[in-house]
Amino acid sequence: MRKILILGAGRSASSLIHYLITHADRQEWRLTVAERDVEHARRMVHGAAEVARAIELDAAQAEARAAVIAEHDLVISMLPAFMHMDVLKDCLRLRKHVITPSYVPDALWPLDADFRNAGLIVLNEMGLDPGLDHMSAMRILDRIRREEGRLEAFESYCGGLVAPESDDNPWGYKFSWNPRNVVLAGQGGAAKYIQDGVTKYIPYHRLFQRPIQVNVPGMGGFDGYANRDSLKYRSHYGIDDVPTLKRGTLRKAGYCAAWDCFVQLGCTDDTFRMELPADATWRDYIDAFLPYPASRDTRVNLAYYLGLDPQGPVMAKLDWLGLFSTERIGVEGLTPAATLQHLLEQKWKLGPTDKDLVVMWHRFRYSTGGVHQEIHASLAVIGDDQVHTAMARTVGLPIGIGTKLLLNGKIDERGVLLPLKPEIYSPILKELEKLGVVFKEDEIEV
Amino acid sequence: MRKILILGAGRSASSLIHYLITHADRQEWRLTVAERDVEHARRMVHGAAEVARAIELDAAQAEARAAVIAEHDLVISMLPAFMHMDVLKDCLRLRKHVITPSYVPDALWPLDADFRNAGLIVLNEMGLDPGLDHMSAMRILDRIRREEGRLEAFESYCGGLVAPESDDNPWGYKFSWNPRNVVLAGQGGAAKYIQDGVTKYIPYHRLFQRPIQVNVPGMGGFDGYANRDSLKYRSHYGIDDVPTLKRGTLRKAGYCAAWDCFVQLGCTDDTFRMELPADATWRDYIDAFLPYPASRDTRVNLAYYLGLDPQGPVMAKLDWLGLFSTERIGVEGLTPAATLQHLLEQKWKLGPTDKDLVVMWHRFRYSTGGVHQEIHASLAVIGDDQVHTAMARTVGLPIGIGTKLLLNGKIDERGVLLPLKPEIYSPILKELEKLGVVFKEDEIEV
Repeated sequence: MRKILILGAGRSASSLIHYLITHADRQEWRLTVAERDVEHARRMVHGAAEVARAIELDAAQAEARAAVIAEHDLVISMLPAFMHMDVLKDCLRLRKHVITPSYVPDALWPLDADFRNAGLIVLNEMGLDPGLDHMSAMRILDRIRREEGRLEAFESYCGGLVAPESDDNPWGYKFSWNPRNVVLAGQGGAAKYIQDGVTKYIPYHRLFQRPIQVNVPGMGGFDGYANRDSLKYRSHYGIDDVPTLKRGTLRKAGYCAAWDCFVQLGCTDDTFRMELPADATWRDYIDAFLPYPASRDTRVNLAYYLGLDPQGPVMAKLDWLGLFSTERIGVEGLTPAATLQHLLEQKWKLGPTDKDLVVMWHRFRYSTGGVHQEIHASLAVIGDDQVHTAMARTVGLPIGIGTKLLLNGKIDERGVLLPLKPEIYSPILKELEKLGVVFKEDEIEV
Repeated sequence: MRKILILGAGRSASSLIHYLITHADRQEWRLTVAERDVEHARRMVHGAAEVARAIELDAAQAEARAAVIAEHDLVISMLPAFMHMDVLKDCLRLRKHVITPSYVPDALWPLDADFRNAGLIVLNEMGLDPGLDHMSAMRILDRIRREEGRLEAFESYCGGLVAPESDDNPWGYKFSWNPRNVVLAGQGGAAKYIQDGVTKYIPYHRLFQRPIQVNVPGMGGFDGYANRDSLKYRSHYGIDDVPTLKRGTLRKAGYCAAWDCFVQLGCTDDTFRMELPADATWRDYIDAFLPYPASRDTRVNLAYYLGLDPQGPVMAKLDWLGLFSTERIGVEGLTPAATLQHLLEQKWKLGPTDKDLVVMWHRFRYSTGGVHQEIHASLAVIGDDQVHTAMARTVGLPIGIGTKLLLNGKIDERGVLLPLKPEIYSPILKELEKLGVVFKEDEIEV
């Protein structure tokens, strides 16, 4: 019997727990789900009492946390990122392997040698993004290397969206992820990427004006806007010399042009509290960002200020949100961003029968023997339901399969690891295909 | 004999020291200039040994500072703003009056009662802006109140610029003030003002697209862009209900449209270090912010990206800075803003014979008995030379005159004061007129 501990069981843990329970008998696993909200954890393990149990744990309590970790062979930390380092230090001290879906904390690298010397594995970035992006990209990059291709460009985009059958609003978007992060997306510094050997910077207020168009077979058109730091994995991927490297986020085609209106107006600013009357309407909210007297027509003013076609698709998206209505805002004294978030949480709510969508898209350009080629690889996963969402499946299943590999001794390396080597990514991608998480590839001679 | 201590004697202290020395005999003053750079202080009091002396003092050394303060009757703190609170606490403890040109620190208001009970005056915001702006505005606001006018709008703008006779570049700008503050101007939050009773917000990336046009008699046209917080003095001025209130900064007409290019590109970002090759040129600097391959023409690319007329006045300003040249940048690893500042410090340097210019402009709209009127008040001061600049005179002379009022018992109020009452502003504005610092007024029926 190998004892697995899951710390934290938020929404994105559902498919992971389901996978582990499904394989528990055959793999001789016993699973503990430790959650502050123990009722939620009980629902997650319901009907699997022989192999899984839920316990109450506030993971911020160091002593209690260590006591629980000590009883297990492997820890999967699904806690918020800022709590990981404490767990990782416990695991080093108590000699436990760990898996997390989160970015490697800066403070973890100095402990790499300690984990290696202790014969331990810390397997990080094992979810969707970061996670599947690494695995699917490395599989193709390694193949291009084997074929002695010269890599000219690598671009990689990912997005959590709404499934086509549940897409009933002109934005093509509903929240399947933290709404605050969506509203603040792109803030906190210029986006950075490399194009033809030149490092390029996009300031926040231009970010949504410069998406690339992405076509995902069977899923239609998307906008891809640049992530803050595309260059982070250059060394990890072994592509330090690639002339063009860009990573980004996907939204439905047309989203970025409309979202740019909020950026241009200043509606995504999260640094000051607005002074609006208690009975302010959404029209008042928009008026606060326009240079014209409020007595004139707000909708006309906005279209004029931003140079928009009053009958065009961008204005249609703003109309649909009710931004020119005399409906009361209903919250007060918040930042522009938080006020906007309040509206979007009502309008972009994933309904009880709605399904979400995860899309990932890579483009590789390379040359072999004078022939230039492109590979487009794409993944589109639609959620099963509100529990086993596409987000929960694409985050949880790679972790589940990684758990199996680790516990079955299939991972030889020790220390702080990312899923960048074939011994990790190959079996995971293969098993994911059987579970319906399949990357499609197109090769194009250019 | 009254003993006056000046703490800190930077460039803007020259006219203040000159004023105090000039009046020292008649007023029975003795002046101490305490500076870390004692040689600089000696030059400032040169030729006035009977009434003024320079001493070496590091004002950050609490004990030494208190010992010097204890020997004097009045302290004028020209230190950087962050050092004021320590000085002010010394003055309370040692029972000394203080004058500063700086904003009232938040931590000072709670000491107001203590200063009052001790019979002490802390006279703040006594320079140009803040300072002369308060005095000149309050004189007119009080007059409108006396005439029972109903104030409808108050707008106030100020700028430190270059004198017309020294203005030989298409930007109409040279640095007479901290270059870093000029490059970062407007950052750190949306600009806020009130228009027709509605609080309006301008995000940084729109700030330089929305200047007002200001005409100063005899000085030509200016752009006025909004300051971050126009509403700060609403209560102090007694105009809580004014429907339109805006404060801002003046630049020569056309400056804002050209500066906006830097904002739009992302050149004023001070949050990350650029990765440019060691031999990078200014053209490379611009290319880093453009979405096009560097192989194409940078100047054409920029004009296209920002929608500028290639032969227009904005491009002429960028051309003049040499931004499309293959000249080496000469600094490395700095932020975009600091890199740009390096260029501007060369191009916008105030030459040895150049004179600076201070411009202030207020517009008041009010109604009396159904008649709507506007008063435009403007100040334009040209520097005498590199020592007695317009900046030094407009900062230093109000402090000097304020010193005289205070020591001669002309100020009845005690505690934390701003120059908002006639007993302070009237004699100062009158004496300034004799010294050539004169506000012109136009009354217009509208």
